[in-house]
Amino acid sequence: MANRRAVVSLGHKALGYTTDEQLNAVRHTAKALADLVEGGYDLAITHSNGPQVSMIHKAMTELRRLYPDYSPAAMCVCSAMSQGYVGYDIQNSLKSELLSRGVNRTVATILTQVTVDPYDEAFYNPTKVIGRHMTAEEAAMEERKGNYTKEDPGKGYLRVVATPQPIQIVELEAIRTLFDAGQIVIAAGGGGIPVIEQQSNLKGASAVIEKDDIASLLACKLDADELIILTGVDCVMKNFGKPNETPIRNMTTAEAIALKEAGEFAPGSMLPKIEAALDFLETKPEGRVLITSLDAVSYAISGKNGTVITK
Amino acid sequence: MANRRAVVSLGHKALGYTTDEQLNAVRHTAKALADLVEGGYDLAITHSNGPQVSMIHKAMTELRRLYPDYSPAAMCVCSAMSQGYVGYDIQNSLKSELLSRGVNRTVATILTQVTVDPYDEAFYNPTKVIGRHMTAEEAAMEERKGNYTKEDPGKGYLRVVATPQPIQIVELEAIRTLFDAGQIVIAAGGGGIPVIEQQSNLKGASAVIEKDDIASLLACKLDADELIILTGVDCVMKNFGKPNETPIRNMTTAEAIALKEAGEFAPGSMLPKIEAALDFLETKPEGRVLITSLDAVSYAISGKNGTVITK
Repeated sequence: MANRRAVVSLGHKALGYTTDEQLNAVRHTAKALADLVEGGYDLAITHSNGPQVSMIHKAMTELRRLYPDYSPAAMCVCSAMSQGYVGYDIQNSLKSELLSRGVNRTVATILTQVTVDPYDEAFYNPTKVIGRHMTAEEAAMEERKGNYTKEDPGKGYLRVVATPQPIQIVELEAIRTLFDAGQIVIAAGGGGIPVIEQQSNLKGASAVIEKDDIASLLACKLDADELIILTGVDCVMKNFGKPNETPIRNMTTAEAIALKEAGEFAPGSMLPKIEAALDFLETKPEGRVLITSLDAVSYAISGKNGTVITK
Repeated sequence: MANRRAVVSLGHKALGYTTDEQLNAVRHTAKALADLVEGGYDLAITHSNGPQVSMIHKAMTELRRLYPDYSPAAMCVCSAMSQGYVGYDIQNSLKSELLSRGVNRTVATILTQVTVDPYDEAFYNPTKVIGRHMTAEEAAMEERKGNYTKEDPGKGYLRVVATPQPIQIVELEAIRTLFDAGQIVIAAGGGGIPVIEQQSNLKGASAVIEKDDIASLLACKLDADELIILTGVDCVMKNFGKPNETPIRNMTTAEAIALKEAGEFAPGSMLPKIEAALDFLETKPEGRVLITSLDAVSYAISGKNGTVITK
């Protein structure tokens, strides 16, 4: 039987917050990914990068404060560094985990740029928090540079960036070539490095693309059979957090839409995952979406856990 | 006529030292690379990362000093970040330059690990300077962590790392798949992320692989027709820096060996490039090595400049 082609989206839990935490978390994540490979999946993997890009942004900001000869590192540069950092840890750990199981597969990360629309309404209402707390003076300086900040009462100010929709995956052909060759490819980490088309140039944008949005786009463009979203819960829940919460093991897109409209899914949490699932199944009606946790995924692929969404 | 398959090695001049410098330098570099593409070359590109990995190492060290909750960033992690940073700038600029000439080619960076031998004699005599100047106390602390430092008289202490020989390119299959598909691939930046095999694990090593060494290995493994080393001079010189210096436009490997043995080539400068050329031509006797500058390369490919070495 031919392998099933899946795009896997990894959330924060798969990666941790500091370099040490990430190394340990990624080793655990590698086991879940190796289970998928042994379960007959070809994988394209994408991941979040919030804590990582924040750490790098902080480091580059402090560097410049101490050594003013260094020019500033734009968000797109920090994002590229974070793809290098996270991609390396995932490809290293997954390769090792596979080798320890006697499976020899090529695992590689492709640095990925993703175009966004400069007129995306997200640019007028940036909401994604980035980096360390700043003083009021530092925040004012950021605003003068054209960046946005918001007050975190009692703690100072934070930089916020826009989360526009992804349009095109610039390195798609490279990702597809590896994926079609049965290699495991890590791509569009942190949603991809957001760029804006200006004639033939691709200008780095001060923005972050949500990983659920890019995972769905990547799954559509790679013509994947399945989109697997690994998150903090084993299943999508009805009445989440209430005494009568119940796991949803299967739902159709129509059921998902009805639950979404009833306000069942929390914005910034399960809602973007459900929306990514609906987007993928709209483009690929014969596709399948699995939402589950890292720990439950090996049960979920044999149908013993997780939430499956189909058209 | 089929395209010629070339591995191109880019030195420091191609990249600059700070983020702003790099952005400008890379735009200039992209023109030379686009000339090669238009001249009928398929390209795999590798590059140095000395200033970039130093900048990142410095930033991560300062971050940890200010926020002790962050765990240290190992050299391999800084190297991975530098591949993300430099790879992004090159793939972005080269894609733009090609598009502006009406050429649509996929350009992508593959994060690359390269195995080294833990018993490589370089580990017993580290020579490559990394990062900022330290006080005697900081240097002592580095030594206690198992790292090496050396005194830079009057300025403090510097961390030094080993420069072992590359053995295996872990992501070779991914690089080859893209290269064979006629895509432009950037790989093994900064010599690759050095790793040591420990059973099925690949453990990040405190080391730096010289870019000339990896360029030659990559050219051999990709079965390239040509190795193109872009450096600070238009040609290899006989009697370099003396009143009677003369450009060498062509030489055989036998001539190169004779000149090398006569001490014509400076260690740490032209010598490693000549050695890389000899290594490549030893493995691929029908191959060709071109050593020239970024500015002269478009003349050099039509035979009007540069030094060509053949068996």
